[in-house]
Amino acid sequence: MLVSGGRRLLTVLQAQRWPFQQSRDMRLVQFQAPHLMGPHLGLESQAGGGVINLNAFDPTLPKTMIEFLEQGEATLSVARRALAAQLPVLPRSEVTFLAPVTRPDKVVCVGMNYVDHCKEQNVPVPKEPIIFSKFASSIVGPYDEVVLPPESQEVDWEVELAVVIGKKGKHIKATDAMAHVAGFTVAHDVSARDWQMKRNGKQWLLGKTFDTFCPLGPALVTKDGVADPHNLKICCRVNGEVVQSSNTNQMVFKTEELIAWVSQFVTLYPGDVILTGTPPGVGVFRKPPVFLKVGWLKGGKGGPRRPGRLGLDFRNPGLCM
Amino acid sequence: MLVSGGRRLLTVLQAQRWPFQQSRDMRLVQFQAPHLMGPHLGLESQAGGGVINLNAFDPTLPKTMIEFLEQGEATLSVARRALAAQLPVLPRSEVTFLAPVTRPDKVVCVGMNYVDHCKEQNVPVPKEPIIFSKFASSIVGPYDEVVLPPESQEVDWEVELAVVIGKKGKHIKATDAMAHVAGFTVAHDVSARDWQMKRNGKQWLLGKTFDTFCPLGPALVTKDGVADPHNLKICCRVNGEVVQSSNTNQMVFKTEELIAWVSQFVTLYPGDVILTGTPPGVGVFRKPPVFLKVGWLKGGKGGPRRPGRLGLDFRNPGLCM
Repeated sequence: MLVSGGRRLLTVLQAQRWPFQQSRDMRLVQFQAPHLMGPHLGLESQAGGGVINLNAFDPTLPKTMIEFLEQGEATLSVARRALAAQLPVLPRSEVTFLAPVTRPDKVVCVGMNYVDHCKEQNVPVPKEPIIFSKFASSIVGPYDEVVLPPESQEVDWEVELAVVIGKKGKHIKATDAMAHVAGFTVAHDVSARDWQMKRNGKQWLLGKTFDTFCPLGPALVTKDGVADPHNLKICCRVNGEVVQSSNTNQMVFKTEELIAWVSQFVTLYPGDVILTGTPPGVGVFRKPPVFLKVGWLKGGKGGPRRPGRLGLDFRNPGLCM
Repeated sequence: MLVSGGRRLLTVLQAQRWPFQQSRDMRLVQFQAPHLMGPHLGLESQAGGGVINLNAFDPTLPKTMIEFLEQGEATLSVARRALAAQLPVLPRSEVTFLAPVTRPDKVVCVGMNYVDHCKEQNVPVPKEPIIFSKFASSIVGPYDEVVLPPESQEVDWEVELAVVIGKKGKHIKATDAMAHVAGFTVAHDVSARDWQMKRNGKQWLLGKTFDTFCPLGPALVTKDGVADPHNLKICCRVNGEVVQSSNTNQMVFKTEELIAWVSQFVTLYPGDVILTGTPPGVGVFRKPPVFLKVGWLKGGKGGPRRPGRLGLDFRNPGLCM
């Protein structure tokens, strides 16, 4: 249990570690290391593996993911060459993973977007997407602590598939939508239910956007590394227990429809993140409700702190570690 | 009336032009000019006057307002020296005013924050602030067109006092809040009432965040130029008619309380914008309701297009031009 500066801290550690990683899909990351000045762009050598420093491979590459994505195929092809080369790999223990995207223009969120999550709430499946948002300031790295704010007593978990935009667009047709996607990552739509559901005139924003309420990453898996984003096992463990376990095939509105919908209203920019909704198993609908507690880990109960699992399996749809 | 690419356009032109400008308060702007590459930082020589190019005065200054604000007193003092010097002034006709802040981390909005606006709706004055948001992508310059989206039939006006954050902070006390304020500007919280009130699960975001739904500026008036931000005449003219006319003394939660409230949830960063709510006179509560129409101008009916008025009087609380 951690107490710091009068605030209660919750350690939420996340990892995507799947055995038998053999493919060489692109897993883009933002990271820091003691010997490097400031954030850098890298590639996970494999899921759960070490990091290839893209800025060392090509010093002309930008150091932030958004600038990297803005340059489109030009920078992606450099990253592909880096992955193919036999480059030094920084051991995972020597790097700090940042969120794969920081300071996007938008963090778009989708409510009630899993058929099984609607059943859990006993509400009808929405006829059109329900869109809300978090501020970019809520984004933290995948292994950073989630701060349990003293202002809320009802902080809940929500694992989600996140889509990262790679190409600017407005009024994008569903049939063109995947051309605007850079790739996918895993997100946590941490939610203070008291603020979301009972306060602030029932506008969800405040309950969704406390600092640290949007862990992302570690990797942005490029879309060519994801055979079918709508057939991915998705799960969340809290304190050693699997609390959410579903499949993205339960999504009501798929990636393409969401991009078409949202881009009716707003121009999407490279780096914009769309959190596509959470499957069932959140704490607030349990009987009795369960909320996150100080010191709880994802994936570990008791024992020493270790990376837990808030996972999406990008390759083995049947497998939830 | 303008029709472009199948979309209907609404020309909303805004200006803050008050006669008898004699004081030398700092009116920071972002602008472009044909002979300059990209956005620049400047100072209005006076309200409604020409522009002093700050980047020409000191080429080491950043070219964006957010970077300028991040440097705090160091850059502000350069701007003060520029204002005191007898520098060339670019005629207003030769510059294009951008929003004074672009791509902030947050556009925070406050609902039902004028006592007289609550009366108009026949709802009780809120006991705590109601916070929602726009995406930064909705920001446009003060004289840019507001696009009436085909997706909405009920686009409404809302003039607002906007606070621009100058210094990062979390859990800011109301008594310390003004130290975190860079200054004030005028904003338009353009609102698609159909989407805000009847769609999207009653989450206001979509109705508030269409592209071009957040005109800002032209000037960020530094706080030392505003004797009392809570005693400013605030008004909005649409098509020659005064449609909103009130005073910021009607605000339920003042700047200091809003900053204290919002910073309970999120870290505020330099450049973050807080739209502090609108006074009465919006279209949706008229009988019958009135919504913006293609070609309507702020300040001009019929005749040629000219800058209309969505105004805050930063110096003459009794005067609304």
